[in-house]
Amino acid sequence: MSKEIGVNMTKIIQPRKLPGFNELSPAKQIQFDSMIAKIKGVFEASCFVPIDSPVLELSEILLAKSGGEIDKEIYRFTKGDTDMCMRYDFTVPLARHVAMNFDTLSFPFKRYQIGKNYRGERPQKGRFREFYQCDADIIGNEDLPLPADAECISLYEKCFDALGFDCIIEVSNRKILSGIIADIGGEQIQNQILTLLDKLDKIGKENVRCELVKLGLSEDCANKITSVGEVKGDIHEVVSALDGLCQNELFLQGLRELEELDAYLVALGVTKHIYNLSIIRGHNYYTGTVFEVYLKGHREFGALGGGGRYDDLASYYTERKLPGVGMSIGLSRLFDLFDENGLLPAPKKSVVEVNIIPLGETLIDCLKIKKQMLDAGIHADVAYENRSFKAKMKEANRREIPYVIVVGENEVNTGNFKLKNMQSGEETGGEISDIIKLFKK
Amino acid sequence: MSKEIGVNMTKIIQPRKLPGFNELSPAKQIQFDSMIAKIKGVFEASCFVPIDSPVLELSEILLAKSGGEIDKEIYRFTKGDTDMCMRYDFTVPLARHVAMNFDTLSFPFKRYQIGKNYRGERPQKGRFREFYQCDADIIGNEDLPLPADAECISLYEKCFDALGFDCIIEVSNRKILSGIIADIGGEQIQNQILTLLDKLDKIGKENVRCELVKLGLSEDCANKITSVGEVKGDIHEVVSALDGLCQNELFLQGLRELEELDAYLVALGVTKHIYNLSIIRGHNYYTGTVFEVYLKGHREFGALGGGGRYDDLASYYTERKLPGVGMSIGLSRLFDLFDENGLLPAPKKSVVEVNIIPLGETLIDCLKIKKQMLDAGIHADVAYENRSFKAKMKEANRREIPYVIVVGENEVNTGNFKLKNMQSGEETGGEISDIIKLFKK
Repeated sequence: MSKEIGVNMTKIIQPRKLPGFNELSPAKQIQFDSMIAKIKGVFEASCFVPIDSPVLELSEILLAKSGGEIDKEIYRFTKGDTDMCMRYDFTVPLARHVAMNFDTLSFPFKRYQIGKNYRGERPQKGRFREFYQCDADIIGNEDLPLPADAECISLYEKCFDALGFDCIIEVSNRKILSGIIADIGGEQIQNQILTLLDKLDKIGKENVRCELVKLGLSEDCANKITSVGEVKGDIHEVVSALDGLCQNELFLQGLRELEELDAYLVALGVTKHIYNLSIIRGHNYYTGTVFEVYLKGHREFGALGGGGRYDDLASYYTERKLPGVGMSIGLSRLFDLFDENGLLPAPKKSVVEVNIIPLGETLIDCLKIKKQMLDAGIHADVAYENRSFKAKMKEANRREIPYVIVVGENEVNTGNFKLKNMQSGEETGGEISDIIKLFKK
Repeated sequence: MSKEIGVNMTKIIQPRKLPGFNELSPAKQIQFDSMIAKIKGVFEASCFVPIDSPVLELSEILLAKSGGEIDKEIYRFTKGDTDMCMRYDFTVPLARHVAMNFDTLSFPFKRYQIGKNYRGERPQKGRFREFYQCDADIIGNEDLPLPADAECISLYEKCFDALGFDCIIEVSNRKILSGIIADIGGEQIQNQILTLLDKLDKIGKENVRCELVKLGLSEDCANKITSVGEVKGDIHEVVSALDGLCQNELFLQGLRELEELDAYLVALGVTKHIYNLSIIRGHNYYTGTVFEVYLKGHREFGALGGGGRYDDLASYYTERKLPGVGMSIGLSRLFDLFDENGLLPAPKKSVVEVNIIPLGETLIDCLKIKKQMLDAGIHADVAYENRSFKAKMKEANRREIPYVIVVGENEVNTGNFKLKNMQSGEETGGEISDIIKLFKK
């Protein structure tokens, strides 16, 4: 025996996780799982269907669309002759799935996926290398009307309602800014302009205007762009702020789309949206409606999710035109932020409702009682571990198990048991079937 | 525009998945998800708590325990300076978790994990490189009494009951065979003997006996081992078949444990277990109780899961003695087998219960009706896509959506709508609130 321990001691490896990889305690995992279940419930109630794409994809497939920046973050490796990657989002696998299965799908195709994605970015507060995302997308065949955008936006309100939090969904349409940029002849530097506007919140109006001038825009143009970026409010405020600002067709189309979208949102009962023209979304595949979701009163958390309209989901895999609109919630980040800030409801102390504790030779009887209680849907567990009775009572207390039944030989012989409320100390007597009835109430 | 298409055409990559990686259709994914929910429900009702260990682990951690065979199958790669692996089961991450978090856990620690594992084995029917496993383990601190083994076995019966299938759980105790092997002086070739017995079902009694003799056993010893491997039945049959066969202490202990286990199983109401001495389980860390689960009447499917008792969960990461017992269901394989053999219930044809179809300029009204129905928990969807009314009716039919509401201007003006049963053609009229009441019934 001592020799075996000796062998083990030389072998012991310090147990540790990879940095940036999260692993919740069971109590928190229960909270997290319940959030997943609520979001899944919202997606399903809204007639979205699940896809569970593999975590690994061929690199040729996964990297067809991605730019340089994301590449460094991707977990890519070779096994045998196969060059593969861990997925970094659900959109590319969705595009691959729709292109592969086009003939068997119904359009508009409404799918959701909840699961883990992988990005090997530098680990930092709130940024994980393995993180849960909850995505819902609607894909059209050839075209997809605007009610789809309204539906995706409504999912945010429903999800946050289900989670018990108040959200604000900030909405824009990329065509409005693109139209103005075209109007002032800035198409060549459109991406730089959008990148700057995306920072309006962070660096402020003055800095954005200066940077725009540095890009070569006139003072007037820089002013115009910055003012548009600052437009924020309900649909009437936004329309009146932008009215007559420019005659570019794309601009006008964007504005019309925003008005139409608002009518659909109102019809769907969405109340937590506002319009904010500085909402850009980083991805350069968004082409129309864009949106981000924030926790009400906590804009400092940043966006907890976002999405928008894209013209073409799967142009790398099919010649078919598949426009889509999608929404995403970054659940790992959301959970971490809410947890850090004490916003989550208190976790359940114990999953065990009743601890059945044997006193003397009553283990078999305890197991029988456990069976009866489990059959009745009560979370009962037997303290069968080799510890003293006193230690078991102490442990039940420490684990904050709400009820205990002590099963001694006397109880077994009389069939009369006592259910002890561990907080009040109160004891209720009766047969097990009586105690079960008590629980049912 | 034509130029853009030209660019895309040159870029198109044939969309495809990695071989051995499964991706279900949405209809099947709904069935699969419902099986996961049922198994999760069983684990939770039995007071197991969830852990969601990362898919990636440090290679040093993950490979500490594994033998040569599994290594080739592992997805292992380097990113930066970090040598990492995708997990191939939940046991090693559990060991790492328990060793890391020993001080904050309550023992016996009952945890479950449901998720994907990765093994790069040659893809073949029913073998996936990415596959779901559903694991539940009970870990003791220093020791763990036998009721834990009974609890894990009972989970199989509960899981299969929840899934709506009948199972048979075949149980043995490794000490019985180890004791007999020690008794005949075969310790040096114990692993070879066990490997042969594991094949008893496949290659038959005669072949096993011949191979045992080739290993150097006498005819008598080979006979004895083979006969023990053939012992199968209820606890009384097994005890009487093995009674007096050998006086080795390990053998006697194994037999006593089997009898004790049976008493616990009976107390817990388990009825679907039998004893089969040829159940070995490949993993060489099992040290006592071992078991496998089969679909009743389909032993040709092979074991759909298995598990057993191990002396020491985490000896590579801690000096603490952490004995455990665990059960596992290979859900991807089970689902594939059941699906292939027509054993799954028919999938729901459509997640949409009511398709609301606009006729004329009534889209906004349709969205309002959808909101009312969603609020009432009815899975309603609006056919807002740009298609003719006729095409939408045809599509609702093709998708087997059970009900349709056609919303024309007349219906909107009168507030009187017709709910059409698409199968019977029957129409029921009324206000939307009436139609909702109809659904509630």
